[in-house]
Amino acid sequence: MSSQAPLTNGSQVASSHPVVQLPRPNPGLYTTKDHRIYSAPSPDLQLGPNDCVVHMRGNGICGSDLHFWKAGAIGTCIVEDDYILGHEGAGEILHVGANVSHLKPGDRVAVEPGVPCENCHHCTTGQYNLCEDVAFSGVWPYHGSIRRYHVHRAKYLHKIPATMSYTDGALLEPLSVVMHGFERSPLRLGQPALVCGAGPIGLIALAAAKASGAFPLVITDVDAARLAFAKKFVPECEVFQIPMTALPVENAAGIRAVFLEKLESDEPPVVYECTGVQSSVHTAAYACKRGGEVMVIGVGRAIMDGLPFMHLSLAEIDLKFINRYHHSWPFATRLLQSGYLDLKPLVTHTFTLEEAVTALETCADSTKPSVKIHIRND
Amino acid sequence: MSSQAPLTNGSQVASSHPVVQLPRPNPGLYTTKDHRIYSAPSPDLQLGPNDCVVHMRGNGICGSDLHFWKAGAIGTCIVEDDYILGHEGAGEILHVGANVSHLKPGDRVAVEPGVPCENCHHCTTGQYNLCEDVAFSGVWPYHGSIRRYHVHRAKYLHKIPATMSYTDGALLEPLSVVMHGFERSPLRLGQPALVCGAGPIGLIALAAAKASGAFPLVITDVDAARLAFAKKFVPECEVFQIPMTALPVENAAGIRAVFLEKLESDEPPVVYECTGVQSSVHTAAYACKRGGEVMVIGVGRAIMDGLPFMHLSLAEIDLKFINRYHHSWPFATRLLQSGYLDLKPLVTHTFTLEEAVTALETCADSTKPSVKIHIRND
Amino acid sequence: MSSQAPLTNGSQVASSHPVVQLPRPNPGLYTTKDHRIYSAPSPDLQLGPNDCVVHMRGNGICGSDLHFWKAGAIGTCIVEDDYILGHEGAGEILHVGANVSHLKPGDRVAVEPGVPCENCHHCTTGQYNLCEDVAFSGVWPYHGSIRRYHVHRAKYLHKIPATMSYTDGALLEPLSVVMHGFERSPLRLGQPALVCGAGPIGLIALAAAKASGAFPLVITDVDAARLAFAKKFVPECEVFQIPMTALPVENAAGIRAVFLEKLESDEPPVVYECTGVQSSVHTAAYACKRGGEVMVIGVGRAIMDGLPFMHLSLAEIDLKFINRYHHSWPFATRLLQSGYLDLKPLVTHTFTLEEAVTALETCADSTKPSVKIHIRND
Amino acid sequence: MSSQAPLTNGSQVASSHPVVQLPRPNPGLYTTKDHRIYSAPSPDLQLGPNDCVVHMRGNGICGSDLHFWKAGAIGTCIVEDDYILGHEGAGEILHVGANVSHLKPGDRVAVEPGVPCENCHHCTTGQYNLCEDVAFSGVWPYHGSIRRYHVHRAKYLHKIPATMSYTDGALLEPLSVVMHGFERSPLRLGQPALVCGAGPIGLIALAAAKASGAFPLVITDVDAARLAFAKKFVPECEVFQIPMTALPVENAAGIRAVFLEKLESDEPPVVYECTGVQSSVHTAAYACKRGGEVMVIGVGRAIMDGLPFMHLSLAEIDLKFINRYHHSWPFATRLLQSGYLDLKPLVTHTFTLEEAVTALETCADSTKPSVKIHIRND
Repeated sequence: MSSQAPLTNGSQVASSHPVVQLPRPNPGLYTTKDHRIYSAPSPDLQLGPNDCVVHMRGNGICGSDLHFWKAGAIGTCIVEDDYILGHEGAGEILHVGANVSHLKPGDRVAVEPGVPCENCHHCTTGQYNLCEDVAFSGVWPYHGSIRRYHVHRAKYLHKIPATMSYTDGALLEPLSVVMHGFERSPLRLGQPALVCGAGPIGLIALAAAKASGAFPLVITDVDAARLAFAKKFVPECEVFQIPMTALPVENAAGIRAVFLEKLESDEPPVVYECTGVQSSVHTAAYACKRGGEVMVIGVGRAIMDGLPFMHLSLAEIDLKFINRYHHSWPFATRLLQSGYLDLKPLVTHTFTLEEAVTALETCADSTKPSVKIHIRND
Repeated sequence: MSSQAPLTNGSQVASSHPVVQLPRPNPGLYTTKDHRIYSAPSPDLQLGPNDCVVHMRGNGICGSDLHFWKAGAIGTCIVEDDYILGHEGAGEILHVGANVSHLKPGDRVAVEPGVPCENCHHCTTGQYNLCEDVAFSGVWPYHGSIRRYHVHRAKYLHKIPATMSYTDGALLEPLSVVMHGFERSPLRLGQPALVCGAGPIGLIALAAAKASGAFPLVITDVDAARLAFAKKFVPECEVFQIPMTALPVENAAGIRAVFLEKLESDEPPVVYECTGVQSSVHTAAYACKRGGEVMVIGVGRAIMDGLPFMHLSLAEIDLKFINRYHHSWPFATRLLQSGYLDLKPLVTHTFTLEEAVTALETCADSTKPSVKIHIRND
Repeated sequence: MSSQAPLTNGSQVASSHPVVQLPRPNPGLYTTKDHRIYSAPSPDLQLGPNDCVVHMRGNGICGSDLHFWKAGAIGTCIVEDDYILGHEGAGEILHVGANVSHLKPGDRVAVEPGVPCENCHHCTTGQYNLCEDVAFSGVWPYHGSIRRYHVHRAKYLHKIPATMSYTDGALLEPLSVVMHGFERSPLRLGQPALVCGAGPIGLIALAAAKASGAFPLVITDVDAARLAFAKKFVPECEVFQIPMTALPVENAAGIRAVFLEKLESDEPPVVYECTGVQSSVHTAAYACKRGGEVMVIGVGRAIMDGLPFMHLSLAEIDLKFINRYHHSWPFATRLLQSGYLDLKPLVTHTFTLEEAVTALETCADSTKPSVKIHIRND
Repeated sequence: MSSQAPLTNGSQVASSHPVVQLPRPNPGLYTTKDHRIYSAPSPDLQLGPNDCVVHMRGNGICGSDLHFWKAGAIGTCIVEDDYILGHEGAGEILHVGANVSHLKPGDRVAVEPGVPCENCHHCTTGQYNLCEDVAFSGVWPYHGSIRRYHVHRAKYLHKIPATMSYTDGALLEPLSVVMHGFERSPLRLGQPALVCGAGPIGLIALAAAKASGAFPLVITDVDAARLAFAKKFVPECEVFQIPMTALPVENAAGIRAVFLEKLESDEPPVVYECTGVQSSVHTAAYACKRGGEVMVIGVGRAIMDGLPFMHLSLAEIDLKFINRYHHSWPFATRLLQSGYLDLKPLVTHTFTLEEAVTALETCADSTKPSVKIHIRND
C-alpha cells in the first residue's frame, strides 16, 4: 500500500496530518469480521495536503458490500477488523488540502473509490485499475464512504455538473464498471447484443448497450420479475427467462433462437455476463456468435468448473475479464449528462444515513425485491 | 471488371441471359458525358441466374450524382457514354434468377449498389469495398437504380423489415457510408465528438455519433441555415459556424474553446470530416485532441495542399480514410429498425420518378436549400 | 457440407466429374472407426473444374491424426467409416480442372486442407476458418493427403518457391496454426513471452516468438528431453521444467521468478498455451502478467474444470482461442522463405509412403521420442 | 513546464537544490540562436531529491541536433539562447538524489531524454509522449547530454545490462523512435514491408522490420551509396533507388513492381516513411497496399502540399504519425539484449567528447558520408 495513503483506518491512525473539525456528527456504517453490521461514529479524519474532506450526500449499496458483510471476504480481500462500508458515493467538498487546486469547498463531486499507487508499471501506463497497491474505499482496511464526512485523495474526486443529482453521482461508480467492460468489448451500431443477468450491473449493461446503438438486445435472468423490470427499463429489449432445470447448451439454443428466428437477426458477437454464476457463463459461451467474445463483468466463485473448452476453441470465442475501471468518471459523467441514459429508475429504495443498517438489511432481504438502494446523507 | 457482371449496359448488351418482360414502362434518369440529364427508357433487363429484377420504390439523390452530371467524372471514374444514375435505392423483388434462394417475388429489399469480384484478395478477406473490379450501379458503365425496374446481383439485395419504409430503405446507403467511418473510427460512450460539415453525410454522422453514446457533440458548417437544421435534427448538439475569412488554426481554436470552456469537456479525440473541403480538413487537424484521429469521410479534390504536417506529427494525430462500406446493410437496417435514429427528417423534398430530372435540378439549385431529395417510384 | 465439395469420399462417389487416369498406384494411409490403420489403394479421383490433382511429395503427421486413429473422434468430428488421413502436405500439380488459371502441371504447391463453403457470413467476412461447412482433408468423410495423388480445390493450393523443400511445404500447415495464434495475440519487439509445452506446436510457437522479436523467451514442459530439444532449437530461450507434483499456482510462481529474477524482465503479457492439458492452462493463467492474455492454441479435453476464475477477473487476463487459420499460407511461405526461421530440425524422422503405417506407429510410440515425423512420397 | 523540472538551464539557475561537486571538468557541446556551435563548461549541476547525476559515457548525434544548430528551431521549439545539445546518451550513475531507490552510484543507465509533467491527461493515461509540458534534454531551454556529467530525473534513467555497451545504450533512443512507430503500425510475421529512406532512422526501421519477422523487405533512397549500406546492413532486403526526376506515382509503380513481380509478393500493407521529404510521402501513399497505412516517422516541413487525397480515400490508406515514444526503453533494451538486432554497424564514426564540435561538423558534411556518429565520453 502506498505510504501516502490518505485514507484513515479506524484502528491505526498512523498519519501525522491535522485532524479536521467536523460541523456535525459523522456516523458510519460498519461491518465486522464476524458478519455483523452496525452504525457508529467514524474515526477522526486527517486531511493530507493532496486530500479533500467530502460531505457525502449520497451512497449506493453494491452487492459486494453485502458480500463483505455476509462472507467477510471477496477473493483475497479479507475483513480483518471493523470498518466502514461504501464505495459508490457523491457529495460536496467541505475542506481541501494545501496542494489541491482543482477543487474548492462547495464543489459537487463524485468519489472514485480506488486510489492507486501511481508508481507501478500499471499506473504509469494508464491501467491503474490493475495496480496491486490500491487503497480502495470500503475495502478493509480502508474506510468507505457510507458516513457523513469522508476524506479522499483529491485527484480521485470528479466534479459533476450542477444539473446532476447526487443519486446520479453515486451511480457513476457502477456505470464505470459497465463502461470499462464496454471499453474492452465494444459494441457497434446495429450490432446484436446479449446481457446475462438482470441485476443492477446487468441492467446498466443493457442501458449502455442501447446507448451504444446496439440492436437487437436480449437480456436473460432466472427471475421473471427482474425481467419484467428490465423490459420496463429498456423497452427495446427482448427478455429470455432461464429455466432453472435446463442445461446451458439448451438455454443457449433458446437464446439463439430468439435472435435468429424471433428477431431475424444474427447471433450476438459480444455477450456481457453479469451474473457471476457458473452455469450462466457456460450459457454465454454457447450463445455467443462464432468468433465473438464473452465479457465477464460479474464474478462469483473463485474456481470455475465445467467450462466448455473445446467449444470455445472450435468457435474461437474469447473469454474476457475486467477489474473495475480507469479514467472512466469523465466519460460516465458526460454520458449521464447527455440524457441518453436514465439510471434513476434503478433506485427502488432510498434511506437516510441514520437508516443505513436497515438499508443494507433490505438489500439482503430476498422477500423485498430491490434493484439499487440509495442512502441519502443530509 | 468481372466477366460475370450482371449489370446491363445500355450500349453493349453482351450477355446471353434472357430478357425480362416488364409489366410497365421503365424510364431511367440518364446523364451524359457532355453534362446533360434526361429521362428515357431503360435498356432491356437480362436476368442472370444469380440476379433479381427489383421494382424500385424509392431512390435518394447523392452529391456524387450531381458531380457525375456536372463534372462528368469523380477521380478515375469517368462518364464515357449516356447511362442511368442512382445508387441509393430500395424496392420490391419482381423476378428472381434460377439460383436465388434467399429472396422471392414480393420481398422488400434495399440495394447495395457495389457488386465486387469476390475473387481478389480484398474480397476474400472481407474488405470487398477495396475490390478494384467492382460493378457499381450508377457509376458508368453500370446503370443505376433511378428507374422503375433494376436488375441486380441477389447477394447484394438485403431484406428490410415490413415496418421500414422504402425511403428509409434508400437511406441505408448513405448511412452505410457513415457506419463504415464509425467502424474504422469508433466512438466510446461519453466521448466528445466533432463533425465537420452539416450536409447529408455530416448530419447522418451527427445522428450516428449520438446513437453511439458520444457526448458532447459539436457540428460545424459555414452556413447558418444548415447548422439550424442540424440543431433541430439532433437537439443535443452544439453548433459552430465557420467564419469564411478565418484561418483553420483560428477556427480550430474556436471549436476547442466550445469543448473546453462552454461544454467543460475534453477535446474530441475523433473528428469526422464530412465536407471534403481543404480548409475544413486543416481545421479538423488542428481541432482534434492530441493522439486522436481525423476520419475523412468526405473527399473533394484529388490533391490536398497546405496540410499541417508537423502539427499532425507532434500531436500524433492520424488521418484516416474510407471508401464506401462492407457488410454494412444488416447493421444499418438493425440500427434504423431500433428507432434510436430517425433519418426521415433529412428528406426535405420528394419527387416522382417522372419528375426525376426536376429532382436532380432541385438538388443542384443553391437557391432552393435541400438536405436529402427522394425520388418515389410507383 | 457444401454440395460442391470436390473431395471424393471412398464409400460414396457421388460426383459426376471425370475420373483421372493416374500414372502410378495411389496407396493411402487409412484409419477406421474401430481404431485400426492400414495402407490400401485410394478411391478413384474425380477432377472437378475448380480442382487440381496433386502428386503429393511430402506429408507431416499431426497429433490429431493419432487422435483420430486412437480415439476415433475429436470433439464433434467422428470417424464413421474408413478414410485416408493427412492434412499437412505439399506436392506437384499433375492435372488442373477446366476453370483453373493460376496453376499448371508441374507447379509446386502446399495444400491448405480446409475448403470452406465461401457463402456463409464467416466466409464472406474473411474468417473462413469459422465456416461450419468446411470440407477438411483428413477429417472424415474427406480423404486426406497421405497418399500419392490427391484431388483438391485449386484455390486452396498455394504455390511455394523453387527453393522451398516439400518438407518445408508440409510444415506450412502447423506453422499456419501458430501464426493464426500470433495474429490474434501478437507480440511486440522486446516483449517477454511464455510458451507452455515443447511439442511440435509449442516449438513452432517458440521459433515464431523469436522471429517476432520477442525477448526473453521461456518454454515449459514436464519432459526434460523435450526442453533440451527446445533449447537446442532456439538457443535464446530459457527452459522451465514443470514438476509433476506441484500446483499450477506454484509452477506459475516458479516461471514468474525466471522472468523477474533470473532474466531481470517483466512478466509475459502473452502466454501461448500449446499443451491442451488442464493444469497447464491453469499455470498459464497464473503466470501471465496482469492485464495480459493466454492464447490457447492446444486444446485437449472438451470440458475444463478448476479454472481460476476470480484470478482471471482480478488480474484482467483474457483467455483467447483459435480454430485453425485463414489466409495464412502466403504469410507462412514468406516467413519460411525469409530464412528467419528454420523448422527443418523439427523433423526427427522421415519415412516413405510405403512405410506410412510404421510412421504413424512411430509417432504414437512413446519409447521412440519424436518431434515431427515426415512421410516422403516419391 | 513542470515546476519540479530538474534540468538546469545555463542562464537561469533558479533551483535551490545543492550544487554537485564534480570530479573532473564538464565541457558541453553548445549551440546558439545565431547558428554556431562551440564547446564550453557546463553550468553547475544541482541535484534534486528525485534526480541523479550521470557520468555520460556515450552520446549519439541526431539529425535534429544538426537542425537546431543550422535552423535554430524545429517547429515550435526555438533556440533562444546558448544551450547544450544531446538526447541520445548513456552513462554511469555518479550521484543519486535523496528519494532515489532503484539506482545507485556505478549503475549503468541509458537516458530517456524527455521528462513529462506526470499530471496531465496524457501522462495519466500512459501517453506521456503527448505531454505538452515535457522537459526534454537537448531541446532549449533544457541542456542536453553531450557533456561529461548530466543531471536527470531518476525515473527516466533505465538500467542497461552489464553486457551492453554504452554505444548500444545511446542507440536505444533512436531505436525507441522506431519501436514506437512499430507499436502503432505493427508488422506481422511474413508480411511485406517498405521503408522509405536509408538514413539512420530508416536503417533502424529496416532492422526492426526484419526483427519483426516481416518479409520481403524493400528500402528506398535517392542515394546509391546509402542503399548499398542498407543491403550490407540487412542482406535480406531489396533496395530501390528513387530517380530524382520521376514522379511519385511512377516511383510507386516501380516499387510495387519489385514486390509483385521480382519478389512475387503482395504489396506492403505498412509503409514506414523515414525521410520527411514531401515527394517521398507521396510515393509512400501510392506504393502502399489498398487498405494499408503509411506510418510517418520522419517529418520535415511544417506544411505538406500535393498530398494525393483522393487516392488515399479511394484506397482507404491511413496516414499515421508519431511523436517520440513512451515506455519503450525496457522493450528496446531487451530487443538489443536478445541479439536479434545489431545496430553497431550503424556507427560509422566515433569522436571523443573533446572532439564534439568536429563530430557535429562531420555529421553535417555531405562530402564525408556518415550514418551514425558517436561521441565517446571518458
